[in-house]
Amino acid sequence: MAPHSALPVLDRPAERTADVVRVGVLGYGYWGPNLARNIANSPATELVAIADLDTNRLVSARRAHPVARLTTEFETVISDPSIDAVAIATPAATHFALASRAIANGKHVLITKPLATRLKDAVTLVDLARKMDVKILVDHTFLFTGAVRRMKQYIDEGELGELYYFDSTRINLGIFQHDANVIWDLAPHDLSILTYLVDRPVRSVAAIGARHLGQAMENMAYVTLQFDDGFLAHIHVNWLAPAKVRQTIVGGSKKMLVFNDMEMSDKLRVYDSGAQLAETAEDIRKTLVQYRTGDVLSPKIDKTEALELEINHFARVCRGEESAISSGELGISVVRLIEAAQKSLRGGGAPVGVSL
Amino acid sequence: MAPHSALPVLDRPAERTADVVRVGVLGYGYWGPNLARNIANSPATELVAIADLDTNRLVSARRAHPVARLTTEFETVISDPSIDAVAIATPAATHFALASRAIANGKHVLITKPLATRLKDAVTLVDLARKMDVKILVDHTFLFTGAVRRMKQYIDEGELGELYYFDSTRINLGIFQHDANVIWDLAPHDLSILTYLVDRPVRSVAAIGARHLGQAMENMAYVTLQFDDGFLAHIHVNWLAPAKVRQTIVGGSKKMLVFNDMEMSDKLRVYDSGAQLAETAEDIRKTLVQYRTGDVLSPKIDKTEALELEINHFARVCRGEESAISSGELGISVVRLIEAAQKSLRGGGAPVGVSL
Amino acid sequence: MAPHSALPVLDRPAERTADVVRVGVLGYGYWGPNLARNIANSPATELVAIADLDTNRLVSARRAHPVARLTTEFETVISDPSIDAVAIATPAATHFALASRAIANGKHVLITKPLATRLKDAVTLVDLARKMDVKILVDHTFLFTGAVRRMKQYIDEGELGELYYFDSTRINLGIFQHDANVIWDLAPHDLSILTYLVDRPVRSVAAIGARHLGQAMENMAYVTLQFDDGFLAHIHVNWLAPAKVRQTIVGGSKKMLVFNDMEMSDKLRVYDSGAQLAETAEDIRKTLVQYRTGDVLSPKIDKTEALELEINHFARVCRGEESAISSGELGISVVRLIEAAQKSLRGGGAPVGVSL
Amino acid sequence: MAPHSALPVLDRPAERTADVVRVGVLGYGYWGPNLARNIANSPATELVAIADLDTNRLVSARRAHPVARLTTEFETVISDPSIDAVAIATPAATHFALASRAIANGKHVLITKPLATRLKDAVTLVDLARKMDVKILVDHTFLFTGAVRRMKQYIDEGELGELYYFDSTRINLGIFQHDANVIWDLAPHDLSILTYLVDRPVRSVAAIGARHLGQAMENMAYVTLQFDDGFLAHIHVNWLAPAKVRQTIVGGSKKMLVFNDMEMSDKLRVYDSGAQLAETAEDIRKTLVQYRTGDVLSPKIDKTEALELEINHFARVCRGEESAISSGELGISVVRLIEAAQKSLRGGGAPVGVSL
Repeated sequence: MAPHSALPVLDRPAERTADVVRVGVLGYGYWGPNLARNIANSPATELVAIADLDTNRLVSARRAHPVARLTTEFETVISDPSIDAVAIATPAATHFALASRAIANGKHVLITKPLATRLKDAVTLVDLARKMDVKILVDHTFLFTGAVRRMKQYIDEGELGELYYFDSTRINLGIFQHDANVIWDLAPHDLSILTYLVDRPVRSVAAIGARHLGQAMENMAYVTLQFDDGFLAHIHVNWLAPAKVRQTIVGGSKKMLVFNDMEMSDKLRVYDSGAQLAETAEDIRKTLVQYRTGDVLSPKIDKTEALELEINHFARVCRGEESAISSGELGISVVRLIEAAQKSLRGGGAPVGVSL
Repeated sequence: MAPHSALPVLDRPAERTADVVRVGVLGYGYWGPNLARNIANSPATELVAIADLDTNRLVSARRAHPVARLTTEFETVISDPSIDAVAIATPAATHFALASRAIANGKHVLITKPLATRLKDAVTLVDLARKMDVKILVDHTFLFTGAVRRMKQYIDEGELGELYYFDSTRINLGIFQHDANVIWDLAPHDLSILTYLVDRPVRSVAAIGARHLGQAMENMAYVTLQFDDGFLAHIHVNWLAPAKVRQTIVGGSKKMLVFNDMEMSDKLRVYDSGAQLAETAEDIRKTLVQYRTGDVLSPKIDKTEALELEINHFARVCRGEESAISSGELGISVVRLIEAAQKSLRGGGAPVGVSL
Repeated sequence: MAPHSALPVLDRPAERTADVVRVGVLGYGYWGPNLARNIANSPATELVAIADLDTNRLVSARRAHPVARLTTEFETVISDPSIDAVAIATPAATHFALASRAIANGKHVLITKPLATRLKDAVTLVDLARKMDVKILVDHTFLFTGAVRRMKQYIDEGELGELYYFDSTRINLGIFQHDANVIWDLAPHDLSILTYLVDRPVRSVAAIGARHLGQAMENMAYVTLQFDDGFLAHIHVNWLAPAKVRQTIVGGSKKMLVFNDMEMSDKLRVYDSGAQLAETAEDIRKTLVQYRTGDVLSPKIDKTEALELEINHFARVCRGEESAISSGELGISVVRLIEAAQKSLRGGGAPVGVSL
Repeated sequence: MAPHSALPVLDRPAERTADVVRVGVLGYGYWGPNLARNIANSPATELVAIADLDTNRLVSARRAHPVARLTTEFETVISDPSIDAVAIATPAATHFALASRAIANGKHVLITKPLATRLKDAVTLVDLARKMDVKILVDHTFLFTGAVRRMKQYIDEGELGELYYFDSTRINLGIFQHDANVIWDLAPHDLSILTYLVDRPVRSVAAIGARHLGQAMENMAYVTLQFDDGFLAHIHVNWLAPAKVRQTIVGGSKKMLVFNDMEMSDKLRVYDSGAQLAETAEDIRKTLVQYRTGDVLSPKIDKTEALELEINHFARVCRGEESAISSGELGISVVRLIEAAQKSLRGGGAPVGVSL
């Protein structure tokens, strides 16, 4: 697969060239301003237009981007022949409609997660893009962070040995949404990281959740993914946690990685595994007083804003210079796993098979 | 229920009285020395004898306890008429045989976790103790720690509001055992804390685990317990973690507790819950930049060694002065939940019903 | 003193009024862009012009502020009759010349720290501002952070009891400057916080430092301030530290504050003091096994950007609606203490008296 | 110097030999029980007698060490011909009298810190020991911890490059003593570590402290040591801190060490120094957003109890098999530096010269 070899390219500075990619941003709510800012700042892209249904948001957009065209009509952006690509940051339920029209108009698409709210829609979008010969990327921003890129490098270089498990905790402090449950909201981050780092087929997904505060949507859930080869993945997502936790562990026979995104200076730590069989009570006693079994390295991590790298990468993908890291196919995988998790959740928690 | 009212009594200093409880310790491997030391130090108990099959351990026992009788014959202790109680710290597989003989001989029993390796044995032991009019306590030491006692107090006083979930992580750094899987080894701690803190019936237990390093036993597992009223409990146990983690969260509508046993000075933190519905994109943005929603209190925790309090409590229970906190009934509940977890594990992870 | 009563006003939203304060920014290097951005965003101020000698920086200014006038001539801003105030973010050595000309032209002045590089210049500026009836504020940004404002509140409300000491550590990871030593670079932050929080006369200042890497300037220093009443203050500044530390402790007889600016979620912690005399060896043993003597509270802190609050406050001060928190007088105090520290440093470390 | 080459020997297991060192312990208050326990447990030493003026303590000693002789008369231990060595854990004021008599009787001496309360007494003791051909060791326990031994190794192997500074913080939470000020109580730990790690002459010592709570003794102090070659050392000791801190930084041109004794799993961290000159505003901006400049390694540290290693080492020194690590000469250096600090403290904080 191409993604791995594309890695070093990410650090290549974006150059202002004749073939700058002209982009329109659809949706200027929570995430759209970040996309717009990075598109405006990149020498490889030009921010041409911003569309949002809410005129208050457009007022705010004008202040930040006085030269971009602003509109409440998505269609005027989607059909604008001077625009090469659209970045879609509208609610997930609108992704399929907007993206399919943009693709039909020959636009490249960068789309916030999840790619679509139904697996068949996600597949349709990717098929359509292939037919129209345009590129589709999902904005799984974490894949462009210094920490995840470094984890990918450790894994690809075999530093971890045999891979054993992936354990991710993504818990928030008390904000509920009402248009999606916590799995749809938070798990795409973990599932995209998992899919990117660990390239092997999932056998089944089990999910158990709970609803509180009289809500109709689950606000906490545990998702467990079983693989054919004994590899195990687990994700804890929660909107009702006492503190914000963003931690991902990847366990291997030789080394283990701990990515703690709430840490300012030690985001990634690399532990020697050092597992051993306890033969005697004395072994157990000795081990229990130790806090670990080997050295720990906390490598320096590139702090470049992930979205800046992602936008530059998107421009190069649009120009055919690179294959996509956060590709439509990866986006489909994420939606497939979420659909399986939802099915298990509805069924009371029994594992649900995943077929590719 | 008596346990709660028994709480303040724990802080009562143990007094040396005429009716000191004379105790024999069975098993002097990993945990036995801790029991023996606390039994010897307590004014309410007297360490009379120590039995272990391994003479090397008895040599070590003699150095620490030169006046206790030492023997490789458990029977001589169990049948000694001068002994009031036995503390059993032998492998779990021997618990039933040793405890039932001790009870049959009219001895009170303090037994390390798990009470037994089969639910029916656990039930038989408690029934037998009732018939023989002796006391049986399980050494679920965590129930006697300052942090768990304080958590119990917060919950019983209604400080947390409605209880939402219990989430516990107990992961170690690379020591494997070969006579039990990781659930039998570690989950009794979490299940005893859960049972002690949250007094409501479990509906089902699901467990998914994995085996690595060519072992026959699971070295990691995720156990999820569903309750009838929407309460959810989850336990992650793991022998193959990069670092030692001992963290238990209890979420409630008003406050949340975080017990981090690896923290030296902030073992327990009490968070204001402050959950709220996000109405707008602006709400989400504002909340996401916050790291929490209210004050956090880190109360001072009593640092008295848990086992010291437990031994004094055991003596008072034997003398009929208190009802047991870590009772045989609680020990049965823990074994019942583990058996259900094992059944789910063997069955591929589907939830297994729990009937009382 | 007025500053304290001004506190609650800070949280008042800035309102767009007819009398918006029109501001020119002098200097667009490291800090100027932050001033310009906040001046542009505040409804109470208008960003009219930006001056910098470096045209590359002006190119960057144009991108961020396409409507502001840009110039390499400071004088055209200083003498512009349509401008009410200047915000000076040039190197410290130029502060006196630029600020005195701006004041002479009747402009209000907001000036980055330090107010001036010589005490007599600082005094002259403040005198001049008084004569010209314009306002002068020093951009001691920390005074506007949620944490320092909360510390001020605790202290003013007497929560700490008698104040005992102030201990601040501000150490960086390996960036050296060549136009000032580490005391001039970093200590103004701590000295402004100290002066703001603790309102009592300093008796003497002692400073000991060291130069490494063949530099002419001290890259690390320890500054100790003695007060008449037994209060003690100490500041550690260092450009050659392994990790970034930003920690300020204020010790009192009843409570102690710890402000850790590198903490994301626990920036401020309030400890019960609980000092006690050890009478016996047993007392010492017991205390040494404790990690603290009382509860700790981690209050929720306002996360509004300090500079946003400062700019709104500056506008209100210019309009005569509030008295200055980060006043010229406070700026003079900071420069006086730094001058004393420099004198002690040059003299080998003996304390140098400070007279007001 | 011998100490360095002695390092690896520490890890040699102590062997029970014919020439076991027979030891009497003087003083069974706070620290004496730890000495007695390790002397009793070591195969290289035998705990023969314990003396203390307080009979309650002797009752407690009997429980722990039923076979040792117990007495309230120090003299009976000191003059006992069957005893090879004494371990002195009485108050500092009695060190000289007890140690000089023990040495005069031909006993080896292990003595808790400080060696003596006056420099001339410390020198006299070491001279006397030399004349009587017995060994004298100071119980600077930190020199035997895994972390300090590892720091010594890094420094001796040149890993840090040129040494720049030593910065130590040893602050407690609110226990006051009345027979010594905080410098005598806490600084010997830091000064012994400093003297052990950094082998170069001190030029001057400055100390500034404060007294609170109406006490006659300083309860907090800052001690700064200047060296001829630009190396700088600083120690902050405090009995009135909000939390317990035990942190020592050693800064070098290539690497820096941070020893945090309150950390359970990361006691020692090794940072790449990576200092660099900031040439431009852009450099400063870039550096300030970084949290560090290179990788950090957290090496595995030996957790063997320091006192166990120290007692085994003491036995080998007594038998002439090793030269002393925590020697009388090192003990003299520590007392010399404390005396200089006291002189500076009394004189208001001006640096006081140190001559060897």
